[in-house]
Amino acid sequence: MAAQKPAHAPTPAPDKPLPDATRRSQRSRQAIYDAALALVGEVGYPKTTIEGIAARAGVGKQTIYRWWSSKADVLLEAFLDLGDRAARAAGATGAEGQATYAIPDTGDLAADLKGVLRLTVDQLRDPQYEGPSRALAAEGLVDEQLGRRFVAKLLEPSLQLYVDRLRSAQAAGQVRPEIDPRIGLELFVSPLAQRWLQHTAPISCEYTDTLVDYALHGLAPR
Amino acid sequence: MAAQKPAHAPTPAPDKPLPDATRRSQRSRQAIYDAALALVGEVGYPKTTIEGIAARAGVGKQTIYRWWSSKADVLLEAFLDLGDRAARAAGATGAEGQATYAIPDTGDLAADLKGVLRLTVDQLRDPQYEGPSRALAAEGLVDEQLGRRFVAKLLEPSLQLYVDRLRSAQAAGQVRPEIDPRIGLELFVSPLAQRWLQHTAPISCEYTDTLVDYALHGLAPR
Repeated sequence: MAAQKPAHAPTPAPDKPLPDATRRSQRSRQAIYDAALALVGEVGYPKTTIEGIAARAGVGKQTIYRWWSSKADVLLEAFLDLGDRAARAAGATGAEGQATYAIPDTGDLAADLKGVLRLTVDQLRDPQYEGPSRALAAEGLVDEQLGRRFVAKLLEPSLQLYVDRLRSAQAAGQVRPEIDPRIGLELFVSPLAQRWLQHTAPISCEYTDTLVDYALHGLAPR
Repeated sequence: MAAQKPAHAPTPAPDKPLPDATRRSQRSRQAIYDAALALVGEVGYPKTTIEGIAARAGVGKQTIYRWWSSKADVLLEAFLDLGDRAARAAGATGAEGQATYAIPDTGDLAADLKGVLRLTVDQLRDPQYEGPSRALAAEGLVDEQLGRRFVAKLLEPSLQLYVDRLRSAQAAGQVRPEIDPRIGLELFVSPLAQRWLQHTAPISCEYTDTLVDYALHGLAPR
């Protein structure tokens, strides 16, 4: 669910001129992010080390320790950066080229939710995203502290975008006023998450479209 | 979601007289199940070994290999047995004392679903169940083959009980005929699963009651 990651220290737009030192240090950061994500996807979280990330990124261990204090911190920022890049690739950029984070509000709630979930399906199937995300989610299942930290920083902020969209739908009279949006969003987000996490059944855009229709209109006859 | 595990070779009711050899071998099996679950909860799936299970159960390694060919097989049966015991503890037993598996059909779909989900919440919070289940789910995230096997044997059959209940509700006119029950059930089952798996938010009976109400009646005004 990272396509709509919320704001954090944004990396400047690539087309802006930058001093050489900044550009060098950005290149190092990007190499470290890429190495961290690739490594955790290949060997899992427990066997990923700062040393391994440094070696793969072609930087000294001290370069990593200058910016981050643990592998969890590196991975956290690497995932935020991955979300940024996905948002930019999907065209979700502001005037400055930075990634922007909001679910569109065209007035058609079903269409807006379906659009976001279709992008999420694409992202969940992207091998660059899938391996590292699974490795991290697996560790979060058994290491509750790590799990809670990553949920708070990566997952919950993107869920809040659904809360915002459902609130504006409530204001427009398209969602019942008594619905708790934080629970309501789970009716279409959690099924996709469980299918992806547990391989319980295939995921597709047709599937997420169906979830949105069922969630908005319910299973009981109207 | 194991409280309503489906039929498999049932262990006989404890109050039935049994030959001594059968009773001894049942005691060994139970010790092996308990050891396997405790061990996987403590050290995780990769570090659980047949040797470790045998040592903890106080049986020879050969006793385990006589009945099962791998630790995955032992754990699979141990979880099925745990589901059996939970079902019996919840009073879901047939005339012979064996565990029975079906969601009640009182004619009140919402009440029936809420009742089952309340039992599931209790089970997910039971430490005896939680540790081993998390360890196995975590391994299933990164080992797709193992994950698919456990989903097919443990999770999917219990989801099929919801399919059955939703089908009978469709026959009674309480669920729209065009709803696919296999997707419909995910609106209330998957949110609970995700909260539990990923620690995204607390779980409670009030929460699962709300999920059932939202899923049946939808988020949009009626």
